[in-house]
Amino acid sequence: MTTPAPPAIVLLSGGLDSYTSAAIARDMGFALYALTVRYGQTHEAEVNAARRVAASLGVADHVVIELDLRAIARSALTGASEVPKDREIDSGQIPSTYVPARNTIFLSLALAWAESIGAGDVFLGINALDYSGYPDCRPAFVRAFERLASLATKAGVEGNALRVHAPLLEMTKADIVRKGHALGLDYGLTLSCYDPVPGGLPCGHCDSCLLRARGFAEAGIPDPLLTEP
Amino acid sequence: MTTPAPPAIVLLSGGLDSYTSAAIARDMGFALYALTVRYGQTHEAEVNAARRVAASLGVADHVVIELDLRAIARSALTGASEVPKDREIDSGQIPSTYVPARNTIFLSLALAWAESIGAGDVFLGINALDYSGYPDCRPAFVRAFERLASLATKAGVEGNALRVHAPLLEMTKADIVRKGHALGLDYGLTLSCYDPVPGGLPCGHCDSCLLRARGFAEAGIPDPLLTEP
Repeated sequence: MTTPAPPAIVLLSGGLDSYTSAAIARDMGFALYALTVRYGQTHEAEVNAARRVAASLGVADHVVIELDLRAIARSALTGASEVPKDREIDSGQIPSTYVPARNTIFLSLALAWAESIGAGDVFLGINALDYSGYPDCRPAFVRAFERLASLATKAGVEGNALRVHAPLLEMTKADIVRKGHALGLDYGLTLSCYDPVPGGLPCGHCDSCLLRARGFAEAGIPDPLLTEP
Repeated sequence: MTTPAPPAIVLLSGGLDSYTSAAIARDMGFALYALTVRYGQTHEAEVNAARRVAASLGVADHVVIELDLRAIARSALTGASEVPKDREIDSGQIPSTYVPARNTIFLSLALAWAESIGAGDVFLGINALDYSGYPDCRPAFVRAFERLASLATKAGVEGNALRVHAPLLEMTKADIVRKGHALGLDYGLTLSCYDPVPGGLPCGHCDSCLLRARGFAEAGIPDPLLTEP
């Protein structure tokens, strides 16, 4: 008789990072409950990638939740301005693609689902070293959310703390690509681009495309999204 | 020349508490940006009450955001079970009307809007003394959210901390009714009921109706919702 796998909520955007983060959760023995938020991104391709990734990971459940942030969260990613192209990605400036409070919102939704199904673990694919200047991609943010969760919920009051795992937090994009490669992931399923061209192909010039290209180059692995026929 | 009123986000449910909390914000000189979340409540009457209240407060803007939590947040308020009636409201038990992570989700949405419009203040109508056993209605929760906000946002990184005001936190329901009475509020506009009967009238038996009735009785003020023709 085997013990059933404990449930974990995995935030899944359809990009390379959240795919790798979710695969690490699976590798650790969790049953995956994938949560994708359609928050008013200017394109649908990202949500389609999340569906492909969820299917390939064999998740126990995948919820795509509708939460149109355009009325309250000004960002290039919600259509308030153009997505910047060929920007200096190491400038340390917080870019216009920053979505106010996005990871706070996503984690609070994950917290609701975690408590509802009795999960004590949430995984998200943020990373701090090679990140693009977002404040809510830092270790202190993750710890502050865990503390909030312990006070916010019935589960927390009852002593069942939520663990927020950010397994990529200290990894470079090249480390992430190597890790995913070792786990046998097919990055051809993912889409990292902030501003895909018609047909859902990456633009090659936004921060996310530039970081991804650098990661694959440094890892010495070809990006299947660009090399597959 | 007058200084323009600083903006504040006010979470507005359509109930008595959030109306009073928002009126206190207005009384303090803030311009009100009201945020209502249609989260999968089993009835529409609550959102209609929020619209009436927002109009009567003369808000600068009112956003009703759609966020159907039914797929991820199990609660009597999202239809997972019957709303309990004539319960012992002082039992200290967390009731089935508890919505997992609701105030965390609402505050994170408020945080996004606050940062987008440059507001440094958020008001919510929670209260701890006369509350119904919800963990996310406690002072420590509010302070933990402020700490999270200071780490989560560009505004926080730049040293512009968010203040989360919960002016009703230490008040009884009777105190709240008296305060609203002093501010000239029309509680006939509000709806507190968790399970209104057809036509949008209060059921009179859910926790929220029982707390409201006790508050008006203790304040010695008739509830206009029950006495108006």
